[in-house]
Amino acid sequence: MNGIDLAVSTVIFALRPAPDGHLVLSIPLVRRVRDPFEGRWALPGGAADATESLADTAARKLAETTGLAPAYLEQLYCFGEPDRSPVSRVVSVVYWALVRVDEADLTFADENVRWFPADELPQLAFDHNLIVDYALWRLRTKLEYSRIAHAFLGPTFTLAALREVHEIVLQRPLDPANFRRQIEASRAVVPTGEHVTGGRHRPPRLYRYDTSVQLVDNGPLTPAGVR
Amino acid sequence: MNGIDLAVSTVIFALRPAPDGHLVLSIPLVRRVRDPFEGRWALPGGAADATESLADTAARKLAETTGLAPAYLEQLYCFGEPDRSPVSRVVSVVYWALVRVDEADLTFADENVRWFPADELPQLAFDHNLIVDYALWRLRTKLEYSRIAHAFLGPTFTLAALREVHEIVLQRPLDPANFRRQIEASRAVVPTGEHVTGGRHRPPRLYRYDTSVQLVDNGPLTPAGVR
Repeated sequence: MNGIDLAVSTVIFALRPAPDGHLVLSIPLVRRVRDPFEGRWALPGGAADATESLADTAARKLAETTGLAPAYLEQLYCFGEPDRSPVSRVVSVVYWALVRVDEADLTFADENVRWFPADELPQLAFDHNLIVDYALWRLRTKLEYSRIAHAFLGPTFTLAALREVHEIVLQRPLDPANFRRQIEASRAVVPTGEHVTGGRHRPPRLYRYDTSVQLVDNGPLTPAGVR
Repeated sequence: MNGIDLAVSTVIFALRPAPDGHLVLSIPLVRRVRDPFEGRWALPGGAADATESLADTAARKLAETTGLAPAYLEQLYCFGEPDRSPVSRVVSVVYWALVRVDEADLTFADENVRWFPADELPQLAFDHNLIVDYALWRLRTKLEYSRIAHAFLGPTFTLAALREVHEIVLQRPLDPANFRRQIEASRAVVPTGEHVTGGRHRPPRLYRYDTSVQLVDNGPLTPAGVR
């Protein structure tokens, strides 16, 4: 009511296979069909809703535009510089989300929704490049001290798959033996007792995150309904 | 414009001397003089301004109500649950600030502004107890991996004073020799070459934070004008 429009947007991260088979950290963007910035790509989002929590609005908007359901959803930051929109004052509460690999296989029916490699974006609408850069910084920082990597993976995974997630997000190779030692020392993952099925001689063990260990994930403000 | 009022509030931390001389982690609160929650204590703040950045509004409101200038100011979180105000939908962008000990000596002229020990608050207006709890969590977490403690201290300080800040904020005694080793290993502080003046036989050395060392402070989104 003070001449300020309140919006909610979300940066959605997923690991998607590139044409050569490698997984690439990717985000879905929506092409704007009206001014300002008509034709430019932008983060999924829209106006805040007067009766809904901000996290619920973020989850609903991202489901409506992309069909995706987040495995992890956290508030990123509230962006409110006076000049970020050329036509009105818009304050955007931005969330960031992680979706699983199987969800990320999805190709969007709407030609105005498309996956982009997170590190090779075109010039986006508003200050959305800055927002994605900040979300990437948060993701990379948080990956090193929390168990959020499993939100890309599903409930069970091999240590090689977990290491690959870390390597793709951090953009550097990790020594397998060191990685195994660090993960085991952190006591964040535990063996399930199961192995990858298939005809291999020494099938890799499957692990899961130990949810009884207190790790810094969302902090004390986890939105209701999201782990 | 979607039936939502946007507000800006700030949790301001300082170390203030208690009657017995010990320093206590304290925050200034403002008594509400109108409904809702008339008579209850609340965080300093007010309506967002259509032409001002959110951080500028936070700094201006805290200066107007308390006369304090923050040594550190960072966005904490955007609180937007639909039921947090009984009369309208209010989304509050909350900042947290640290002020130096000399500023914290200030006693407010207005009887409706008062310092409270951060861990012994009365029932506050709105969801402000939750907000302070979250700010305390952020302060304690961040103290362990950043150089924000010096915002309580001024540009130079003894290791004993720095340890005392950590002890008060973390609410546990720290072994002096271990603390010295950890601080020296982090290479976050450097000796100034000066000593505390006064007639002592072995005057303690003065230190300052090494600003050439990259530490996680505000992250990449430091508000303009705030270190």
